[in-house]
Amino acid sequence: MNRLTIVKVGGKVVEDPKSLNNFISEFKQISGSKILIHGGGTSATKLASKLGIETKMIEGRRITDAKMLDVVVMVYAGLINKNIVSKLHVVGCNAAGFTGADLDLIRAKKRQHPEIDYGLVGDIEDVNTLELRLLLEEAVVPVIAPITHDGNGQLLNTNADTIASEIAKEFSNYYNVYLLYCFEKSGVLKDQKNEKSVIPHLDYNTFSNLKENGIIASGMIPKLENGFYAKRNGVKEVIITNTSNLATGKGTRLQLEIKQ
Amino acid sequence: MNRLTIVKVGGKVVEDPKSLNNFISEFKQISGSKILIHGGGTSATKLASKLGIETKMIEGRRITDAKMLDVVVMVYAGLINKNIVSKLHVVGCNAAGFTGADLDLIRAKKRQHPEIDYGLVGDIEDVNTLELRLLLEEAVVPVIAPITHDGNGQLLNTNADTIASEIAKEFSNYYNVYLLYCFEKSGVLKDQKNEKSVIPHLDYNTFSNLKENGIIASGMIPKLENGFYAKRNGVKEVIITNTSNLATGKGTRLQLEIKQ
Repeated sequence: MNRLTIVKVGGKVVEDPKSLNNFISEFKQISGSKILIHGGGTSATKLASKLGIETKMIEGRRITDAKMLDVVVMVYAGLINKNIVSKLHVVGCNAAGFTGADLDLIRAKKRQHPEIDYGLVGDIEDVNTLELRLLLEEAVVPVIAPITHDGNGQLLNTNADTIASEIAKEFSNYYNVYLLYCFEKSGVLKDQKNEKSVIPHLDYNTFSNLKENGIIASGMIPKLENGFYAKRNGVKEVIITNTSNLATGKGTRLQLEIKQ
Repeated sequence: MNRLTIVKVGGKVVEDPKSLNNFISEFKQISGSKILIHGGGTSATKLASKLGIETKMIEGRRITDAKMLDVVVMVYAGLINKNIVSKLHVVGCNAAGFTGADLDLIRAKKRQHPEIDYGLVGDIEDVNTLELRLLLEEAVVPVIAPITHDGNGQLLNTNADTIASEIAKEFSNYYNVYLLYCFEKSGVLKDQKNEKSVIPHLDYNTFSNLKENGIIASGMIPKLENGFYAKRNGVKEVIITNTSNLATGKGTRLQLEIKQ
């Protein structure tokens, strides 16, 4: 099977022009087929605030009413996505930006939760690997904004980490998939203040212990849950890393077996 | 040669949910390959105003500084484009939204004007018919937002009517192209107050006379100039019409020969 690298890049990396440029030049060096999934929460919160729309988060998830949906669609699918795409063409990547609505790439269902009304938030039901594979075969680099749709004309806000792990899982049937979560830190840190305290290998038991002891930061927990989910579902490597290690494979590698 | 229908739909048609739904159900009925290009100026002006950004227009063209560019990218490539795309999937059109940056579809050059600084406005230099043809061959319906790029990482605001005529011109080498400008009126009217006064056939001389006599409204002039440009460059039919006549071919047909 061929190699496919799926990179999820955090909002903070792509929202600052200098950091975005660094990312682009590292991303370019990844050989073989690749898919990029990006966030953009900070910009969405900023725009919402300018428009007098209050941002409500529950456990790191954005409550998305109709007005907030317009904001995230504008920021993720418009501003951030198209800036990344235009910059990728400068370095010779034939990028094309998509949401889950385009080509019906990712279908989702409005989240039903017994207690919390998340609003127009989607849980992924189906990834259209056929259309994505056609794009990869044409050497296109899909750049995916974290917006999906329900097939009935409703766009839905969907977590970018989850989109990355679901796409990685589906593609593990066709490719050796390398899933990289790229954010502003060098990996999962034992000590949040020390960039050199990267945990090189992390199994689920150790993760659970670190989580219980409050050593792994709250924002990292869903990322790691998504990463272990991908790893359990056939993805070859899941690595938590930062921009400068993107092409080297350094960072925190998730593993299934318990490390002694 | 196969038939290709290129529809430019005005902002006013796609910005109102009811009118957008009507448009979608008419657009669906067009048989064969099709490309949709949309505007969205009214929504952009509204968002700009909410953000305290002043809209300046010169002869119907938006002066686009960096802040206004962000606004039009968010509104055109995000909000309007993705809403159209998700609704097209409901009626079975395999739509995918693009700007000129995606797949390097439309390359433009920042406008140089001896007197007016239009800002980040692009004049089209190249249409990537190869990538668009691959999409059409896969039965994809490209939905194009009026944003282009310069190949150096700069997005540019570009007139949607012009994008439609340039794409139509380039595609006339490969298809019998029907270019439809769809807006809120039934066609070019002799009397702005009378929807029944549609001019069924319009040649360039008659257009020039009507323009001189102030009978053709100012907003219609660039649309018609673009239409005649397409017609002179091999496009089979250019029709100015409204949503309800989209599949019927009614409206104002442009013609090259002078009508007696």
